[in-house]
Amino acid sequence: MPKPSMSDLYLGIDGGGTKCCAVIADAQGVILGRGMGGAANAYQNLTQTQASIIDAATMALHDAGLPVNKMRDLSAGIGLAGVNVPSVFAAMQQWQHGFKKISLTTDLHIACIGAHKTTEGAVIVTGTGSCGYSFVAKQATILGGHGFLLGDQGSGAWMGLEAVKAVLLADDHTGPQTQMSAMLHDYLQVASTMLVDKLSTASSGDYAKISQIVFAAALQQDEVAISIIREGAHYIDLIAERLWQTKPGRMSLIGGLSTYITPWLKPDIVARLSPPLAQPEFGAVMLAMQA
Amino acid sequence: MPKPSMSDLYLGIDGGGTKCCAVIADAQGVILGRGMGGAANAYQNLTQTQASIIDAATMALHDAGLPVNKMRDLSAGIGLAGVNVPSVFAAMQQWQHGFKKISLTTDLHIACIGAHKTTEGAVIVTGTGSCGYSFVAKQATILGGHGFLLGDQGSGAWMGLEAVKAVLLADDHTGPQTQMSAMLHDYLQVASTMLVDKLSTASSGDYAKISQIVFAAALQQDEVAISIIREGAHYIDLIAERLWQTKPGRMSLIGGLSTYITPWLKPDIVARLSPPLAQPEFGAVMLAMQA
Repeated sequence: MPKPSMSDLYLGIDGGGTKCCAVIADAQGVILGRGMGGAANAYQNLTQTQASIIDAATMALHDAGLPVNKMRDLSAGIGLAGVNVPSVFAAMQQWQHGFKKISLTTDLHIACIGAHKTTEGAVIVTGTGSCGYSFVAKQATILGGHGFLLGDQGSGAWMGLEAVKAVLLADDHTGPQTQMSAMLHDYLQVASTMLVDKLSTASSGDYAKISQIVFAAALQQDEVAISIIREGAHYIDLIAERLWQTKPGRMSLIGGLSTYITPWLKPDIVARLSPPLAQPEFGAVMLAMQA
Repeated sequence: MPKPSMSDLYLGIDGGGTKCCAVIADAQGVILGRGMGGAANAYQNLTQTQASIIDAATMALHDAGLPVNKMRDLSAGIGLAGVNVPSVFAAMQQWQHGFKKISLTTDLHIACIGAHKTTEGAVIVTGTGSCGYSFVAKQATILGGHGFLLGDQGSGAWMGLEAVKAVLLADDHTGPQTQMSAMLHDYLQVASTMLVDKLSTASSGDYAKISQIVFAAALQQDEVAISIIREGAHYIDLIAERLWQTKPGRMSLIGGLSTYITPWLKPDIVARLSPPLAQPEFGAVMLAMQA
């Protein structure tokens, strides 16, 4: 890695489906300021993603006590959801940004760099969505991460969706009864018959919030809730086992659901997980420094 | 039922997620013409639904050798997917249609009237979606039918979605291998890594077409395909059992997937099913005559 000059400034961006986090760091990696912007899934909405990045960077400059025109002096490392799709990556590369330069990669890649503070390793993300990632010998392996309609087993949105399905079956008496029925109707403030109507515009983030009902019901020994969590945890176990086969050296479980699901994973899987050393946006800073 | 006048003309509309069927009948129930329009799921797209109804009615008038301005003399019975949602029913009632009058109900209700040529009975629909319905003592019971994201187990779209999920897991080696992988990649003409991208705009109808891959793989003893069909068939069995509890007298299994899934149902369930006596659009004509 070439040694950066003392006066260089780095921007790290971690963009996901819900929000976009920015940090500004100096050449020693000291964080000078932080900012946050809106959704930044480049696959779902490219224009919004670019606006969210600028918003987050502007806020981080302000937080660092730096003028907005310093934007052009920032070397940006940008990790974004959705740029694993080649056409989306190409479209982002065409962006007329105002930074000094950008290094673009997936949100998974910067999360991995951040978690291990080095280029090689593996991460399993379980938040709104779920995904497995390893980067070993310059080779990326991505497992899952297809969204909660097609996959994302073990994620918050998947768990919330499975809970809603189970409640609908229970309401029809075509599935076992569950305490989640009353909890979900209370949470959404709707009668049983209006549940589907109420959820007609629900986002993956809305479903992810419902996952808290699943964990609450499981605490009360609700068998339906327990079986949903077990199925999700089993998938995370499988992802971990597949990722270990790539020999990543170090593996972390990250994302908003990670602390909730960890007790449900196989003990030998948990024993081999390491805590993340830095946040994804710091991984993005490291990427910019390497560029 | 008041006796219709000899000169009265009736339009029967059966609107679903894929297409909209129309028949024009005289007061004796003799079918004079047939027409077809595009998708007519009022929940998914109200404007498109109304356009599809007009398209189908126009084609049916033409088929009957009647001028288009006869539209205003038609008493229409309209059965639509999605109008079980109260807000959608209300929105359809606001429609400034060009018919003499309309009688609006669910696609399930007209399918049930058609299947039994009388007001009481039960139907299980399995086509693009799935649903159970009985109408006994003026009381409707609806089971399932929430769309393939939240339910519709045992339907074509559900089966196609489960197949795609299974293929994605198999591709990642986080699920068992299946012959459906090669079949799906061939069918969609995409490499494994582009499968999700290709399906990003897929409709429930697109997923329903994929269900044919599941049945084809099951014929070749593919265990993953067989387990998907078994899970779907088990749900249809449960729906049948629940509907028999409402004492409907007669029950039919209808919809595009019905002949494919029947061999997978419990023999005692199959033994109690009766063939449908008329198509749903004829049930819609009967509804219009009763109004």
